[in-house]
Order: sequence, then C-alpha cells, then structure tokens
Amino acid sequence: MDCIFCDIVEGKAKAEILYENELIISFLDIRPMNYGHSLVIPKRHYESFLEIPPDELGVLIIGVQTVFKAMSESIKPDGINIISNNGSAAGQSVPHFHFHIIPRFHSDEFKFRINLKSYKGNLRKDFAEKIRTCLP
Amino acid sequence: MDCIFCDIVEGKAKAEILYENELIISFLDIRPMNYGHSLVIPKRHYESFLEIPPDELGVLIIGVQTVFKAMSESIKPDGINIISNNGSAAGQSVPHFHFHIIPRFHSDEFKFRINLKSYKGNLRKDFAEKIRTCLP
Repeated sequence: MDCIFCDIVEGKAKAEILYENELIISFLDIRPMNYGHSLVIPKRHYESFLEIPPDELGVLIIGVQTVFKAMSESIKPDGINIISNNGSAAGQSVPHFHFHIIPRFHSDEFKFRINLKSYKGNLRKDFAEKIRTCLP
Repeated sequence: MDCIFCDIVEGKAKAEILYENELIISFLDIRPMNYGHSLVIPKRHYESFLEIPPDELGVLIIGVQTVFKAMSESIKPDGINIISNNGSAAGQSVPHFHFHIIPRFHSDEFKFRINLKSYKGNLRKDFAEKIRTCLP
C-alpha cells in the first residue's frame, strides 16, 4: 500500500517528528497554514475515523492534547484549531486518518465557521430525529 | 457562571439533544454550516482543551465517534469534518470546550485548508525543535 504517512511511521520518508509512542506519531505538516502546524496520527493505517478502535482513539486524543500543550507553550499562539477532514469532500488529502493542530493568530484570516444556515419550521427537529434513529 | 452549554446540560436551555451519557452530551448546532451539524461537549465546564482530564477526554472522543457514525448512516454525507476551535483567535464563540461534527457534501464550498505556506531554509527544523523542547 502506498501511503506517505505509513512511510513516515516506518522511517522510509522524512518528517520533522515531534512526538511518538507505541501507537501514535506527531510531525510537522509540510505545507502549514501557520508555521508549527502539526499532525497527530495513529501509526496503524486507518483511512476512516470509524475504523479506529476505542483504546487507540483514547491514546490518539491524549497525544493531540500533549502536542497542543507543547504548541501553546512553545509558539504561544492566540488560539489553536484541532481539525480532522474525513473524505475528499471534507478536504482529506492523505487517506490515513490524522488530526491537524493549527496555531492561530488574531492577525491571520482563516474562517472555519462560515455560511451559517438557519433551520426553518420542523427542519431542526426532523434532522435531530433522523440522527437519533442511528444512535444507541 | 453564565454559559449557554451549561444551561443545555442542566436542562435550562432547549436543544435538540442527540446523545448523552454521564460525562458528555451531543446536540445540534443551532446555526449549522450544513443541516445536521452537531456538537459534542463534556458536561463539566472546561473552557480549554487542556483542562479536560484524560479519562473524560477518552469518553468525549468515543462520543464524537458515536455521533460521527450515526451522522454517516443517517445523513449519508460525502464527508465529515471534526473541528475544535480554541480561543477567540481560532473562532471559539462559546467558552465551553466543544467538538463540531459537520456533514460535508461535494456541492458545498467550504475550504478548511487554505493559504498554505512553505518552510524555507532552516525554518521547519527550527519550529520542530521549538515545539520538541516542550514535549516529553
């Protein structure tokens, strides 16, 4: 399987590695939105968020918190976004699940909350009901 | 403390609740980017991602996975974004930590990966070194 992130995990491709343990690894995004923009990924190849088993997911999010803390302390940004894009329609470019951790500054101009819609009539209730039918 | 999400947790403010357990609750974002846009939050009031204890963080991300799966099955979007905005510079509007789960479609036009920079000279190495000094 040809996966650049698996190559990084296996040491076959270079990356600025920040942190790793048995299950996860973190490295700098090579094309950052702001300098220091980092990724945290499971070492095992999962394309989809839904494939990640609960124990690995727990380790992964603790890893995100660890890198988030280090980014806060070292870069001292004004804010930080945690983003995961799942599927090409959501902007996923590498098909190996990853969290972006992006340092943000009041001076940058990224907007992640745009084009907000309103629910009219019963639409909100209907959507909630629809999702709830698939929940425990 | 005046917090709309705490009010939702306590049943003092209305929301279309999708899912909850002892530690977390999920409900529809009242101003969605696409219909079905949901939030997952810890019931306890933490403003910052860094305040969330590891055990609660594990439960929270499993909750995100649970709602993500239900959204996939019910709404059948082309993709899904998971986003957390931390600090006003990162777009955080409610100071109670939350994950956005946003259904995405090839037809929508949101771009979360924009304005990509390049690292020149030693800049990438320098940034990695800077973050690594704050990591275990």
